[in-house]
Amino acid sequence: MCAATGVPPDPPPTGRGTVAELGEFGLIARITADRGLPPGTVLGPGDDAAVLLAADGRVVVSTDVLVEGVHFRLDWSTPHHIGRKAVAANLADVAAMGAVPTALLVGLAVPGHTPVATVDSLTAGMRGEAGRAGAGIVGGDVVSSPQLVVSITALGGLQGRQPVTRSGARPGDVFGVCGRLGWSAAGLALLRRGLRSPRAVVGAHRVPRPPYRAGPQAAAAGATAMIDVSDGLLADAGHLAQASGVGIDIDSAALPVAGRLIEVAVALGASGTQVRHWVLTGGEDHALLACFPADGALPPGWRGLGVVQQGSGVTVDGKAYDAHPAGWEHFR
Amino acid sequence: MCAATGVPPDPPPTGRGTVAELGEFGLIARITADRGLPPGTVLGPGDDAAVLLAADGRVVVSTDVLVEGVHFRLDWSTPHHIGRKAVAANLADVAAMGAVPTALLVGLAVPGHTPVATVDSLTAGMRGEAGRAGAGIVGGDVVSSPQLVVSITALGGLQGRQPVTRSGARPGDVFGVCGRLGWSAAGLALLRRGLRSPRAVVGAHRVPRPPYRAGPQAAAAGATAMIDVSDGLLADAGHLAQASGVGIDIDSAALPVAGRLIEVAVALGASGTQVRHWVLTGGEDHALLACFPADGALPPGWRGLGVVQQGSGVTVDGKAYDAHPAGWEHFR
Repeated sequence: MCAATGVPPDPPPTGRGTVAELGEFGLIARITADRGLPPGTVLGPGDDAAVLLAADGRVVVSTDVLVEGVHFRLDWSTPHHIGRKAVAANLADVAAMGAVPTALLVGLAVPGHTPVATVDSLTAGMRGEAGRAGAGIVGGDVVSSPQLVVSITALGGLQGRQPVTRSGARPGDVFGVCGRLGWSAAGLALLRRGLRSPRAVVGAHRVPRPPYRAGPQAAAAGATAMIDVSDGLLADAGHLAQASGVGIDIDSAALPVAGRLIEVAVALGASGTQVRHWVLTGGEDHALLACFPADGALPPGWRGLGVVQQGSGVTVDGKAYDAHPAGWEHFR
Repeated sequence: MCAATGVPPDPPPTGRGTVAELGEFGLIARITADRGLPPGTVLGPGDDAAVLLAADGRVVVSTDVLVEGVHFRLDWSTPHHIGRKAVAANLADVAAMGAVPTALLVGLAVPGHTPVATVDSLTAGMRGEAGRAGAGIVGGDVVSSPQLVVSITALGGLQGRQPVTRSGARPGDVFGVCGRLGWSAAGLALLRRGLRSPRAVVGAHRVPRPPYRAGPQAAAAGATAMIDVSDGLLADAGHLAQASGVGIDIDSAALPVAGRLIEVAVALGASGTQVRHWVLTGGEDHALLACFPADGALPPGWRGLGVVQQGSGVTVDGKAYDAHPAGWEHFR
């Protein structure tokens, strides 16, 4: 199923003092404290390295780096939200290979004046999101830094299936989505205007809800290609199309346009075009996009958005979508 | 064998412009460019995640974070040196489990004004050091940041053996070392005095030479516990002793004291006590420390340093070594 569970509230902060007072080893012990290691853990935190089962003889692995002020703002999100979001982005990459997330390693570069409670909340968020996907934190590193930087490495298992890459789409395939589109962008628009509601939309920006189980389910249903939406529907469909050497045409009538997003656009004095723009170009929702053979049904929770065709690039109703920028790229 | 190969010189930088001009995707492609993927690579860079073989159904994994100005200085080391050192520190953790390094994922947070040539040199150093250990870069992430932060995750395979933890040492075991001790600390002392020679010693600070193969060899020889020297001989022997619930007594006559280090001490106007202090407390050489059953011979390249005994803590010739600080801990 594609449906995601709700995001629980922040747990109460428990740590006192600053990370400088606690010290490196105390902080690593806090982060990697054994609070339910994932089932495939052969050796958990506390040694030179962790050891994990890789039951079918392969391991899926992906790494993401997030920087304060670039990827998140501590005035718009709590540390708990940021922890959840960082983990969600990375586990979505694992799910987009058709794999089941198993474990995380967490690297933190933290200013010494940071309250221990902030790190506790950050890592509680990480642990909570990892748990939602069935994974856990098995190792990490903590160092001092002028800037808060979060580095996450996620591992997963393929359960005997082949990985679903970006490059296997074939003309004639159905192009589909599972998960939200445009919600994070709409939430960001609200935050930029100083608004904190509707909470469901602002919350979607703070903590995405990737449909983790939809990845392995798509793989089991014969998905030919898959990617998660980090940069926006058009941008990530474009990455998939380019890797597969195909074109993708999206049927605008099939796009999921939530009533909530229309309400937000109205509240912000924006047009209906704005909602479509959020859905087509908004990043960070971490929905999954996949292509399926035309002769089969889509798995539960998946929605057909268009067709794979010969050629290149992504079109909407046969035409280029020209309201750029189509995504978010660092350094540009 | 414990002997390490020499460190080759920097390759000529090839990139032009800044990372801001090249952009995120261009930079990721440069870093993860397929320049000899490791043999166990099922799926290399360019997709949502990498896929690696884990031949015996388990994977060893460790992560390290390094921050400019905290862990390295661009005026004391070239980007190539820094890349090598970051990878060496992490692969040494994998070797210290008795595992053979297989693959790396690299996360970089880079200021936009950084020259592409700097990133090329950094990643060439990473690739070079990974190659020395038989591993390669299979994935990564690059983001913009005010500060240069390098995050490395290393993976390895146990080849059917059990992992060698820190916690298996038993009273009566022989405590031994493979690799250099005190060289990095002596090199740092030279750099702090504005000196750039002897090059072999300064070079040992810039690029450690972990004896990667000695880790699996120790495991095959029945090592009961193992750790790499990140924080200093006494500090890391202390971590091992604590995890194993034993004491370790080091025989000062058995310590490896290189003539080069004595020359450096003399040149700096320091005493012989200084050399012993470097050997006992200097970090970042990433030698391996291990305990072996008393009834067997140590593997080639390993040197006995003392004995494991009942009790706790690490002593030198039966006495506490009181010239603290005994290691390097962040935030303290």
